[in-house]
Amino acid sequence: MGAEQAIGIFDSGIGGLTVVKQLIRFLPQEDLIYFGDTARLPYGTKSEKLIRQYAMEDAAFLLQYGIKMLVVGCNSASATALDLLQDKLSIPVTGVIEPGVTAAVNISQKKRIGVIGTTATISSKAYDKKIFASDKKIEVFGQPCPILVPLVEEGWLDENITRLTIQKYLEPLLEEDIDVIILGCTHFPVIKNLIQDVVGNTVTLIDSGEETAKRVRETLLNLDILNEKPNKGNLKVYVSDIPGKFSEIGTRFLGKPVVNAERVDFEKYLIEQGVEIFPNKMSVSG
Amino acid sequence: MGAEQAIGIFDSGIGGLTVVKQLIRFLPQEDLIYFGDTARLPYGTKSEKLIRQYAMEDAAFLLQYGIKMLVVGCNSASATALDLLQDKLSIPVTGVIEPGVTAAVNISQKKRIGVIGTTATISSKAYDKKIFASDKKIEVFGQPCPILVPLVEEGWLDENITRLTIQKYLEPLLEEDIDVIILGCTHFPVIKNLIQDVVGNTVTLIDSGEETAKRVRETLLNLDILNEKPNKGNLKVYVSDIPGKFSEIGTRFLGKPVVNAERVDFEKYLIEQGVEIFPNKMSVSG
Repeated sequence: MGAEQAIGIFDSGIGGLTVVKQLIRFLPQEDLIYFGDTARLPYGTKSEKLIRQYAMEDAAFLLQYGIKMLVVGCNSASATALDLLQDKLSIPVTGVIEPGVTAAVNISQKKRIGVIGTTATISSKAYDKKIFASDKKIEVFGQPCPILVPLVEEGWLDENITRLTIQKYLEPLLEEDIDVIILGCTHFPVIKNLIQDVVGNTVTLIDSGEETAKRVRETLLNLDILNEKPNKGNLKVYVSDIPGKFSEIGTRFLGKPVVNAERVDFEKYLIEQGVEIFPNKMSVSG
Repeated sequence: MGAEQAIGIFDSGIGGLTVVKQLIRFLPQEDLIYFGDTARLPYGTKSEKLIRQYAMEDAAFLLQYGIKMLVVGCNSASATALDLLQDKLSIPVTGVIEPGVTAAVNISQKKRIGVIGTTATISSKAYDKKIFASDKKIEVFGQPCPILVPLVEEGWLDENITRLTIQKYLEPLLEEDIDVIILGCTHFPVIKNLIQDVVGNTVTLIDSGEETAKRVRETLLNLDILNEKPNKGNLKVYVSDIPGKFSEIGTRFLGKPVVNAERVDFEKYLIEQGVEIFPNKMSVSG
């Protein structure tokens, strides 16, 4: 592995671009290759088995480009497939969960932490397990917030409906007297200000993307493969489908226009390559 | 084709079960085979090219069971892929759009019709084209309502948030003085009463599923392949993924419990069968 190689990031769609935004902020010199599986999004409503399969396929696609590190920029995939990816891949792999958990555990005084995310992420109890692993005395309160995802994608960022939806979802959490909430879905940093407004200033919100970017920086530094070239890195975006409003929606997540996103015929790619990529390929093999 | 053969229905997920509900109501003796592509849902946010590919694959899956007729129980797929399916298949194929349009055109006195659906359905202008084809003088007002889909799936059927979302989406339509609204998404019959409440009694709502079931009955009658056995037909449900709450959510659409839904490893199926099913297979072929 060399410092010049790119970092690979995948997500079920475009939410992972909030992680990319933080990677660019903390690691401006790195080349980034992003794959958004927009043809099969969302992962959050799908079964664990299927998410693991999709995650392996997404990783295989990025490995083609000789990446030096893989970031699972998707909470549902981090929750269900990180162990599998870390087991199968020979490069470092980080998800978005553990970095967010570390920050939350350090910050919480009351030892009462809330987690919000998709149904799959919360049901997996991946956050709970990670939090208990660092401190068994912490109480964790998970709250699935599935409708916040399409609200963000629709661009209803300042709407009363979005505020009411946040209130409805977070009310049970706030009653539990938590002092930290982990934004356990890559869509949520886009409405971080509105969420902060609803929960008030006594609750700290953790942006997993930000914590993940710091973790990636630390990992590359430890392995001595941080890219220290003088010029800024490139971002290349691949997606398995280009929906009509991709550019508009993507901008909302990345904080700047998504340029030259390229569509990959992923199903064709899988049929051509799928079976040979992993020796113990799951249900894709015959 | 024989009267005893089943009717095949596919949808991107579970919304098509509202069409199945109407098929059972109007054609209680027919055997029904449903395929819900829950591993790749939703279709509504995806590109036209990809929806056409998925629709062909879904149809191919159902053709295995020797169906006598195919119902595209999905507005997005009906809007973008019906012509392709009718062209490639040797059995009758109906979508959910044309039957709804015929009913709306017959009912509208003001000749001002509203259509609500997913972004893909409305952008495709499939409803507009069908309406203009029957009467050029009718004005059509399309309104994408993407957030209503997850609201129905979340089961927020009587929530104020759902009512506000309907109001926000339908306000521009009501200002156009329409007298008919076509429910151009198979999720919407589940909240038909709430929508009716918002729009008032002067606006007639058209349930495409109901009109489609009537159309299927007519087609089978004309071809003399209506199943007239004395006993009730069977419903077999296949899905490409079984999410956690499938049974609970499915019941909301079908109006009764979904029993024995069976998961198909659709990706494996495609890899094994995909290339040979259609001579002019689109992007799946090499």
